[in-house]
Parts: sequence; C-alpha cells; structure tokens
Amino acid sequence: MSSFIQTLNDAWQRTNSLLCVGLDPEPTKFPGALANRPDAIFDFCRTIVDATAPYASSFKPQIAYFAAHRAEDQLEQLIAHIHAHHPGLPVILDAKRGDIGSTAEQYAREAFERYRADAVTVNPYMGFDSIEPYLEHAGKGVIVLCRTSNAGGSDLQFLETGGRPLYQVVAGLAAEKWNASGELGLVVGATFPKEIEAVRGIVGDMPLLIPGIGAQGGDVDATVRAGRTAANTGMLINSSRAIIYAGKGDDFADAAASAARETRDLINQYR
Amino acid sequence: MSSFIQTLNDAWQRTNSLLCVGLDPEPTKFPGALANRPDAIFDFCRTIVDATAPYASSFKPQIAYFAAHRAEDQLEQLIAHIHAHHPGLPVILDAKRGDIGSTAEQYAREAFERYRADAVTVNPYMGFDSIEPYLEHAGKGVIVLCRTSNAGGSDLQFLETGGRPLYQVVAGLAAEKWNASGELGLVVGATFPKEIEAVRGIVGDMPLLIPGIGAQGGDVDATVRAGRTAANTGMLINSSRAIIYAGKGDDFADAAASAARETRDLINQYR
Repeated sequence: MSSFIQTLNDAWQRTNSLLCVGLDPEPTKFPGALANRPDAIFDFCRTIVDATAPYASSFKPQIAYFAAHRAEDQLEQLIAHIHAHHPGLPVILDAKRGDIGSTAEQYAREAFERYRADAVTVNPYMGFDSIEPYLEHAGKGVIVLCRTSNAGGSDLQFLETGGRPLYQVVAGLAAEKWNASGELGLVVGATFPKEIEAVRGIVGDMPLLIPGIGAQGGDVDATVRAGRTAANTGMLINSSRAIIYAGKGDDFADAAASAARETRDLINQYR
Repeated sequence: MSSFIQTLNDAWQRTNSLLCVGLDPEPTKFPGALANRPDAIFDFCRTIVDATAPYASSFKPQIAYFAAHRAEDQLEQLIAHIHAHHPGLPVILDAKRGDIGSTAEQYAREAFERYRADAVTVNPYMGFDSIEPYLEHAGKGVIVLCRTSNAGGSDLQFLETGGRPLYQVVAGLAAEKWNASGELGLVVGATFPKEIEAVRGIVGDMPLLIPGIGAQGGDVDATVRAGRTAANTGMLINSSRAIIYAGKGDDFADAAASAARETRDLINQYR
C-alpha cells in the first residue's frame, strides 16, 4: 500500500524540487483561446500541470475554485490526469475541511475516494475527533492548519495559551498526540519565517506545507532556512498565482514552466 | 433586499418554531423504495423537507453528504425546491469553510450564488479576513463556529487565553469586531448548555445555531433555558438524524413529520 509520506519523500529525492504548484483556476484570468471552452478549467489546469511537472514535487488544487464554477467533474479529471501522466507526484486537495466525526467521514470519502487525492488539508478548530476519520484511510495524508499565511491568521493563532501561542499548541498536538498514522503534515505560512522555525522545532521531520511565497510576498531564503529538515527536505513550498498566471497570453504554459523552474531554482539556491 | 436575520426573525414569529431540520442524506439509510433512483438524494431530502416544513423555521443541508456522492446538482435542486415551495424558511448551508480572502471569495460565490443559500457556516481559525468576503454578500448570513458539539471540540476551544476559554474569545470577536453587517450568528453545541449561557451573555441577541439535540444527546430543557433571548427566540435548534431517519420504511415521511412536530413541541414546552 502506498503512503503519502513515503511518496512525498521519494518525490523530493527524485525531482530535487520542493516546489508545490497550487492550482487556483479563475476563468476570468485565462488566456483568450481558452475562454469559451466548456472544459476550460480542466484544459487550463492540465496545461499548467504538464508544463510545470518537470520542476515540481507535488500539486495542490484548491477545491473552492472548482466548486464556485460547478466544475467538480473537471477537478476529478484533473487529479486523474496527474496520477496517470505524472505518477509519483502527490496531489494535495486543499479543502481545509473541519467537522464532527460522522460528517468528517463524508469529507474523507470526498477527498480520497471521489477525488483520489493523496492528502487533504484540514482545520484543527474542532479538535482531534474531527481529524481522526481521515486517518482511517490508510496511507492518506492529512495536513492540519497551524499558522496560516494571511494577516487575520493572528486573530486566533497568536493568542497565548499555557505560555505559548495557539499555533504552537496545534503543532504540539499534531506531533505528540494526533500522528498515530505517521501521515500528518502542517500548514505554516511563508509570510512568517520565525514561526516556521518555531514549528520545525516542535514537530521534528513532519512535512510542512508552506503557502505564501510568490503573490503573497513570503521570503524564500528565510523560509527555506527556517523550515528545512536534516535531510534538507521537509517542505512543500507552494506557489499558485505567481506561477499559473505568469503569462496572460497564448504563451501561458511556457511562462508557467519558466516561473516554476525559476522558483524551484531559487528554493534550491538556499537549501 | 432581503436580510438573513430579518427572514429568520420573521420565520420564528410566523412558525412559532425554533426547529432547524438538518439534511444529512446517507443513501445506505434510505428506505428501499428510493434505493436505486438516480436522484435518490434529492428525492429523499425533498420528501423530508415537505413533510417537516410545517414544524420548522429553517433547514440546514450539510454539504459533505452531497459532495461524497457527487450530488452537488441535487443539492442545488434541493435548495431551489425549498425556496420555491417553502418561501420564508431560510436555508443554512453547513459547509464550515475557512480560507484566505481570495479563496473565501470563491467559497462565498459557491454558497450564495451557486447554491443560493441564505447563510453559510464558517470556521474562525484563520481570523476575520477569512470571514469578511462572505459579509460582502449583502443580506447573507454567516454563522461562525464557536463551541462545537463534539467531544474533541474541547481540544482547542476550551484552552484558556486571557482569562477565558478560546470559544468565548471567538464569541467576543464576533459580537464586538466582526459583525459590521449585522448578519452574523454563532454555532454553539446543545451538548454544553452552560457554555450556551456564557455565549448568550457575550453576544446579546445574536442568533445561535445549536446542533446536538437528538442523536447527539443534548438536553432540550437546559438548551432552551440557556440560549433564549428576551424575545424568546434567538436559536436555530438543529436536529438531523433523529428526524430524517425517524422511520426506516416507506412511512419515513410521516415518521419524520411526527419527529419534527414532537421536537418543535418539546422545545416550545420550555420556552
């Protein structure tokens, strides 16, 4: 049976890349040639995936961008395409789900059985029994929100409790209590390198999904220094908009490939 | 322009009911006559809605139960049916979304434009800028998780910060900082009546969505006493499984209607 963590470790080694390409398709930003195609979302994302796969070690489709356009079928097609044409590159479904156990079972079925994602992002606010149903899907990854890249993330995640901020409590729970499956990861934004360092100190080699470089302005150098493990991996460094909308015309695939290659190289420069 | 809060207040007065019927369709629990119908999820839910509408003041479909079965189109049909046949009864889409602003905009479009829900549940872990995009949809309701009904809810929500538990901090933020639109509500589980009382003390007349009676075992008497407002309303008391699966055979609609009527009456007995 395949394991998300093993697949991810293999991908990091084989590709020599820590780049996770985020797939946030917005039809109003597509080049004109795609605009009126019925499966434009799938066509756009598939083209981006094929162009950037040589420089990436994972892909992260964000489900809201598909759901807002009634394009769940295109998300299914897209993930099937990645598995078929880029085997060994794990797919993280960015859904940030969080609900009581009986409902979490349904969300886990959605992510792992319907969409065939290798991992899913989840929200910790409802506690461990809202996360446990995902762990029952053997070999599947669960990536828990810890310190998010947005400004408002501080509203709750920075509150002090028991002498440390809430996001560090979440990191501690994930490392010490919630990771019986060994398939957990955490989301920690690149906009806060000091906090990446604090989380890395708490969670050992646990994979960190790090959004916020590129359009959100995170510092790649500081991020890599703060987040790398002893094996010089341990991070899924995500860039979405800065890669997929690097070009606005019919050359969008080439522009995305160049942006992905440059981002991979920039990350590797600091490893 | 319609307002969620106004529609809800009108519904409470007109129906003399605080019952919110939760729609969590699980095909394995459907009566045999529905089992092999292509639109079984819609058919089941529509039948439940029509049977229970005389005793309810709102409906709450849980999106995971539709998404796990690739039945988003049936959820669209269901909400359209409620608006067409039971006008004035608000529909709360239970999705518990939470993401950065640009993604939250997509989720808001999903909830309000695609599904035409009157309100949506959201998760506060990522802070105010993850909630704000929903508020830009004028007249739409946003119901923020505060104290959830599951045991694991205590893992984070009960942590002390600044002298009070995190869920009370969320209630304070919702009441004092986040409610410029006047369309906010909070989720507080019926499994914790003392905590409903604490939240009510913080948020004034803000509507509370209260899951956890019925299958989850919450005490109706204690819940109503803890959560009612001066107008003797202020609560969407949700029951899902105990109503929709009250009957297992072809009489399931009648059984659901009876269970809804009895739950409404039980709630009213303590008002």
